[in-house]
This record gives sequence, structure tokens and C-alpha cells, in this order.
Amino acid sequence: MTQDALDRLYRPILADLARVEAEIAQALVADRHEIEEMAAHVGRYSGKKMRPAIALMIAQRCGGVTPRHHRLGAVLEMIHLATLVHDDVIDGADMRRKSATANAKWSNFDAVLLGDILFARAINLLGRLGDAAALDELTRAVSTLCEGEILQNRHRRNVDLEESLYYRIIEEKTAILYAAGCGLSAHLGGAPTPVVDALRTYGLELGTAFQIVDDVLDLVGDEAVVGKSLGTDLRNGKMTLPVIFMRDDTTPAGLALLTKVMKGEGDEADAAALRRALVEDGHVEAANVRARDHLRRGLEAVARAIPSAHADLEEIAGFVVVRAR
Amino acid sequence: MTQDALDRLYRPILADLARVEAEIAQALVADRHEIEEMAAHVGRYSGKKMRPAIALMIAQRCGGVTPRHHRLGAVLEMIHLATLVHDDVIDGADMRRKSATANAKWSNFDAVLLGDILFARAINLLGRLGDAAALDELTRAVSTLCEGEILQNRHRRNVDLEESLYYRIIEEKTAILYAAGCGLSAHLGGAPTPVVDALRTYGLELGTAFQIVDDVLDLVGDEAVVGKSLGTDLRNGKMTLPVIFMRDDTTPAGLALLTKVMKGEGDEADAAALRRALVEDGHVEAANVRARDHLRRGLEAVARAIPSAHADLEEIAGFVVVRAR
Repeated sequence: MTQDALDRLYRPILADLARVEAEIAQALVADRHEIEEMAAHVGRYSGKKMRPAIALMIAQRCGGVTPRHHRLGAVLEMIHLATLVHDDVIDGADMRRKSATANAKWSNFDAVLLGDILFARAINLLGRLGDAAALDELTRAVSTLCEGEILQNRHRRNVDLEESLYYRIIEEKTAILYAAGCGLSAHLGGAPTPVVDALRTYGLELGTAFQIVDDVLDLVGDEAVVGKSLGTDLRNGKMTLPVIFMRDDTTPAGLALLTKVMKGEGDEADAAALRRALVEDGHVEAANVRARDHLRRGLEAVARAIPSAHADLEEIAGFVVVRAR
Repeated sequence: MTQDALDRLYRPILADLARVEAEIAQALVADRHEIEEMAAHVGRYSGKKMRPAIALMIAQRCGGVTPRHHRLGAVLEMIHLATLVHDDVIDGADMRRKSATANAKWSNFDAVLLGDILFARAINLLGRLGDAAALDELTRAVSTLCEGEILQNRHRRNVDLEESLYYRIIEEKTAILYAAGCGLSAHLGGAPTPVVDALRTYGLELGTAFQIVDDVLDLVGDEAVVGKSLGTDLRNGKMTLPVIFMRDDTTPAGLALLTKVMKGEGDEADAAALRRALVEDGHVEAANVRARDHLRRGLEAVARAIPSAHADLEEIAGFVVVRAR
């Protein structure tokens, strides 16, 4: 997606995104400068604000954006930021969006607590929506995404990881929050249950596609374009879709190379050779095709529920996979 | 407090505490055995369940215990357990209640996420109370307690820590959750605002006394009696009330010793000498007197609001400071 196309997609929601940002800033006010400084730092992790942006785009197509959607958007972004802060502690990462991570700038101690503060304040804001269904769905989503991360970690270096388990992991750790955001945006707009369910399905498929693409980019993306450290999945033995595809369809030599790298027994040259094979043998492209399949399925669900919104939501969907090109 | 007195205090709430435990068990059900195993392990951190116990005792004196109080008790205990899990990651602790901590048994990775799961599920349960005031107060309390921990960490080895800042830290990291638990127990029982406020004050003073006593025990307690590792505050340069009292009233040699230990430049013999001085010069006893003063103030607030409950609540208060004797 060109910068022009991205600008065109965002233009209708820019004013609303500014309201989301104001909600976040308000929720992070602290009477102590140490906490404000940390919160402001983490605010800089926010990039395209995809979760609130998608929720706002859906709201525009389901009865219009209301102040409750700004609040929902703020909650979604704050939950996402909290998970980034904790992920960086867990991964020992020291850079994010060209600045130091909270754990690197302060300490693991501060970063664990800062993530907790973001969660607590996100849920406090969510509570002020006064919507029991939203509170239930999003607090469940937070638990689920942490469970997905634990499951993923337990299966690091497990070369035999079933494709179905890979899917379960990415649904839990990524797609459920997209599903909740899309469904709740329609719900807060007063949409009837079939429409809410269709948008939840759309979000689930969109989030699944997003994670597949994210995993592909970690393998073959350009750090300067993607804007974060890449190549960590191979180093950490994280089985992603192209690697699973290759495992199930390669020569004994290919499997030996894959196993060596994923078990952490290879060197940089082995990782580079594996990366080359994943591209040249078509496994990366096959994963991208899968991502597009998921988007198509999400769009089909929406097409049945709200035919008029199909074209718009297709554009949003494009925004998620475009990073793969 | 003798075991007999403790049994007598707990007897009227044993059936209700069992209901609280059932709520916690229900909230921690997971469809994946890895998560259930971790949750069950953390369940073992629960000891006397002081936060739910106090909330139940108050409920009995403010209109009777209802299922909503069982739920409140479960939420308070789960929030407390989540903070213990994260504290152990932060402190690198490997033992708690005679078993391995979550971070030692699994990893920091798993323990950070497990704490998040406990928080998320506690708040999910809280949401199902359908009480906006409770949700607002407790999510704020979670943020505040993390902020208090950050503040405390920033002031490690700060020999000049003002007494007022020590108080602010212990209020934030400990007393606010007691205050919320006591106030909300009365609120859920339908008590009028002045009674709710009086019980919130009682909880704040009780929690403050509890933390002062906890800090004293870390200095001079017996590990076998208290049931956890002690002596870590001196090692970590954490300024507590007896140390602050001594700093403000000692000889130049005493101040030099105190500074050496708190700055992390002393050895075990220096720490032992400091500990001896804290006891012999009366600073430990002065801190215990302070703890009792706080309890008295809390009881006075209750006496004005609900005169009939005074004697009972005095017994609960005794339960908090008794550990100091």
C-alpha cells in the first residue's frame, strides 16, 4: 500500500483518532512525574494505531462514530501497549520504534509494573463505558492473549508443532483482540447481533492474517521498512507458517537444515540458507496466500451481514496484508 | 495472637471463606492443563487470606454476607496473588511459602504472563459484580499499588528518604487495597456513605499498620514463624520506619553504620550490628507503637460511624499487629 493509499484510508478517521489519543493521554495522567515520564515514553510505541483505526472505520459503517468508540479505541490501544511493554521484558528487547524499550531505559522491575499500570488504567477506562458485555469480552481477551503467549513459549524449538496448534496460538495471542475490537465497535454502535458476530469473525480473520504476515515479515522483511528488529523468530526457534509448510514438504537435507536452525544448533549461515529455501521453495508465498484466504473469509462473513460495507472493509483488509508485498 | 484466638476469629467466616475459595477456583478454570497447573500452583501462595477474611468480617457487621461479598473476596485475593507473582519476578525470588515461585518453577516469561492472567481474570470476575463504583475503585487501586512499588524502587538506597514519602509509598503499595476491600465490603452490603467512608479509613489505617509490622518483621522476625525469607530490605537498601527513626536520632557512628548498610557497602556483620542497634535503641519498638497508633485511629473512625462494631473490629485489628510480638 502506498503512502497515498494509506493517507486516503486514514483521512476519514483522523479527527476521531485524535480523540482516541486525547482519551489515552487523559487516562495516563499521573500526579507523579516518574509515572508520567514512563507513560509518555510508551505512548511513542504507538504507530498506525491499527486496532483503534479499524474499530473507528467499522463504527463509521455501523451507525457512526460516538464518544464511546473513542473510548473503546483508547482501551484497545492501551491493552496493546501493555502487552508490548511486557513482551519486551520477556524477550529482553532493548529497542522499539527506534527508542529504548521501557526495560532498557529503566529496568525490568519498572517495565513489569508499567505494563500492569497500563492494563489497570485501560480496564478502568473500559469500566467507565458502563457496558458489561464489552468488559467481559475484553478482560477475557487479555487473559486469552497471555495464555496464547505462554503456549507459544512452551512450543519454542518444537519442530513437530502441528499447524492446528500454530493457528490456535496466533488466534489467542493476536486475533482475539482484533475480533473483540471489531465486534464491540459494531455492538457499541447498536448493531444487531448477526452484524456484531459477522464483524467479530471479520476481526478474527483479519487478526489471523495480520499475524501470519507479521511472522513472514520477521523472516524476510526489511527492518528499515517494517520499523522493528526482525529475524528473532528463527533465533528463538519459533515455528511459523512458512517453516511448518517447508517441514511438511522438503528433502531430508532440507528437513535437517530446518531442524538444526529451529533447535538453535545452527549458525548465521544456516539461518540464511533456511531463509533462502523458505522463499525459493515457495513457502513464504504459500503463507501469504493463506493470509489472503483469511481476509477473503472475513470479508465473506461481512458481505452476508452488511453487503454495503464490503468494499470499504476490503480496503481495510488490504491495509493489513499489504505489508507483505 | 495464639492459634486458639486466631481460630476463634476465623470460625464465624469459615463457610464464607470456602465460598471465596470456590469462586477463585472457578475463575481460574482453563481448558489447557499448562495454565491450570500454573494457576493451581499460585493458589498455594494463599495463606490466611487476610484481605477476603477482613472483608467478610466487615460484611457480617454491615448487614450480612452475600454472594457479592464472596466475589469481592475472590477478586481481592486474586489481585493480591497477581502482585505476589510479579513481585517475585521483580525480586528474582525463588521460594514462597516453602515452594518454588512461578518464575523459578517455570520462567520469568511465564510468571509475567501468569500475573497478567490473574489480574485479567480478577477484573473479569469483578465486572460480573455489575458495580461501577467497585470496578472504578479496584482498577484504580491496582494502578496505584504498582505506582507505589515503582516509587519505592526509585528510592532504594536513598538514606535521606523523608518519613512522609515512606508513608506515601506504603499507603499506595499496601494500604489502598485494604481500604478498597473494607470500604467496598460495606458498600456492597448497602451501608450508607459515612459508614463506607469510615470503613475505608479503617482499612487504610489497618493496611498501613500491616505494612509497618511487615517491615519490622523483615528486620527482626523469625523466618520459621513468619513463613517467608526475611532480611531482604536491608540487603536491598529499602528504608523502613525503624531505619528512618534511627537515622534521625543516632550518633555519628550510628549514622555511618546505617548509611554503609543501606548503601550496600556493608557486610553481614554490619547488617547484624545495625539490626542490633535498631532493637536496642528502641527504634523497632517505636515503629510497633506507630503501627498500634494507626490501628487506634482506624478504630476511632469506625467507632464514630458504627459504635456497635467497635469491639469486633478491634479484634480484627489485633490480628494484623499481633505478628509483631
